[in-house]
Amino acid sequence: MVEKEGSMLTVRKDIKVFDCTIRDGGLVNNFHFKDDFVKAVYNTCVAAGVDYIEIGKNNSKTLMCDKEFGAWNFCDEADIRRIVGDNDTNTKIAVMSDIGRTVNSELLPKDESVVDMIRIATYIHQIPAAIELLEEAHAKGYETTVNLMAVAKCFDTELDEALEMLSKTNVDVIYIADTFGSFYPEEINKLTKKYVKIARANGKQVGIHAHNNIQLAFANTIESMMYGTSYLDVTISGLGRGAGNCAMELLIGFLKNPKYKLLPVLECIEEYIVPLEKELDWGYSIPYMITGQLVEHPRSAMKARDEKDTKYTAFYKGLMDLNS
Amino acid sequence: MVEKEGSMLTVRKDIKVFDCTIRDGGLVNNFHFKDDFVKAVYNTCVAAGVDYIEIGKNNSKTLMCDKEFGAWNFCDEADIRRIVGDNDTNTKIAVMSDIGRTVNSELLPKDESVVDMIRIATYIHQIPAAIELLEEAHAKGYETTVNLMAVAKCFDTELDEALEMLSKTNVDVIYIADTFGSFYPEEINKLTKKYVKIARANGKQVGIHAHNNIQLAFANTIESMMYGTSYLDVTISGLGRGAGNCAMELLIGFLKNPKYKLLPVLECIEEYIVPLEKELDWGYSIPYMITGQLVEHPRSAMKARDEKDTKYTAFYKGLMDLNS
Repeated sequence: MVEKEGSMLTVRKDIKVFDCTIRDGGLVNNFHFKDDFVKAVYNTCVAAGVDYIEIGKNNSKTLMCDKEFGAWNFCDEADIRRIVGDNDTNTKIAVMSDIGRTVNSELLPKDESVVDMIRIATYIHQIPAAIELLEEAHAKGYETTVNLMAVAKCFDTELDEALEMLSKTNVDVIYIADTFGSFYPEEINKLTKKYVKIARANGKQVGIHAHNNIQLAFANTIESMMYGTSYLDVTISGLGRGAGNCAMELLIGFLKNPKYKLLPVLECIEEYIVPLEKELDWGYSIPYMITGQLVEHPRSAMKARDEKDTKYTAFYKGLMDLNS
Repeated sequence: MVEKEGSMLTVRKDIKVFDCTIRDGGLVNNFHFKDDFVKAVYNTCVAAGVDYIEIGKNNSKTLMCDKEFGAWNFCDEADIRRIVGDNDTNTKIAVMSDIGRTVNSELLPKDESVVDMIRIATYIHQIPAAIELLEEAHAKGYETTVNLMAVAKCFDTELDEALEMLSKTNVDVIYIADTFGSFYPEEINKLTKKYVKIARANGKQVGIHAHNNIQLAFANTIESMMYGTSYLDVTISGLGRGAGNCAMELLIGFLKNPKYKLLPVLECIEEYIVPLEKELDWGYSIPYMITGQLVEHPRSAMKARDEKDTKYTAFYKGLMDLNS
């Protein structure tokens, strides 16, 4: 049985604050961030004591169109280095690999890259492909995570099997990913105990990536942390797809480790996020609440937001097939 | 020891959904709601199966200026009846009495009023005055609650004494009120166990009134519910002072009792809240996060929002005395 770890006043050395502002935020604008914004996020992470920054995806230009997407959907080594140089800081660099959109052989050996960690996003039916990629990344010298998506729609037995398979690999961290933003803390608690038990038995750690569809991204993150999750995904001001993510400023305001600093985050929000809020739409709203409550992908809600559609009853009835 | 009650799928008959849209929302606009809005909120509560609606405060016109505040700061019997008639519904009517702003003798006997419940808001140093009023309200035939405010700044021993005093009265419900929106679920859990233990031992129930300063109003409400709290305060779209309250639509989307209906709430939001959002400012934002994290009253944050001040670092440094 996994029990509560740490207390409100203590520091847990295993905790890693993991920024994904550019990567999850990139889903809002097809990764068309300007360099000064990406540099600001990087500098903020370094100044705030954040342990990792995920600077984008390393999708293959042979599979996705580089006219449609900005540089951070591909993360060429030269693009990353333009922002971080040799990254002579305590903040590690991560990129995300989507199974089905990456070409394993394109991954540079670690000693030719400033990237420290490869995070592999996979659906449960792609687990064998994810394992191939993680073993390749591990062999090339990277830290690795597997972010198992959409588990709200998996059967328990499937999830158990997937975790069992992952536990036998060289992956370092297994992530709970709340893809639909639909989990309640009580469910996150149970999932965390399941993941932590199997991960620890195999020398691995657990992470959490939460979405804010039902205003629980922060609550779910700290609930999961309380029961042994170590890697905590955040974005500045919750910038991320749809209802967005757990806000870095909320988590850093909560953690007691003095290495984490709130002021650089507030500076970044004041200077970069306040103007960005006039251009991009993200964060909690009623359509995201509805898809979250119904455990649906947020794409219909994103469409409603794009169209500034506030006919919430028709939206709800549509998803419930109540219109006819 | 108080243990977890109910499960994700079951119904707890002791749960009461308690709307305070007009009362807590009134703190945003000095209670200047038009009748059609108040009637819409009332009709929504009735249609959604909400158990109580708090329609305002019954402050005394001898103590507060009726030029400055709208009708719902005073709740004259005629004003309430203009909205609810004889209230021939399953939704009970409550009003809030602020200690220091009410005159006990102005309270009508229950058989002359459509009001069912008097909720008494008190700071800990006003407990004797609160007890006088609750006993008067009880003697006149009302249900009563005491909402003990600002407990984040009480000593544990003071809080224990206050709960002990209240437990010996005729009050029906003792409320956990998160005045500063500063509590984390772990703290709400501990407070809930403390309140529920003493309340149950004396035949009383517990309620929770949460604020959303650190995006935890909903999470804290369901955490408290899980450990035995029965009366759950909500407002439509979280309308309420500062960062607002636990949103009715989030709670009703979570509860499994089929008597609660989400669609009437969505209808009200679509028709009344969407336009109101263009006039009034409430809900989570960085200044409220900062006062919540620092366990401060939100008034400085309300001022910053009024002035559209996004100089968050200066705001934070000001509260931390870091500017000099």
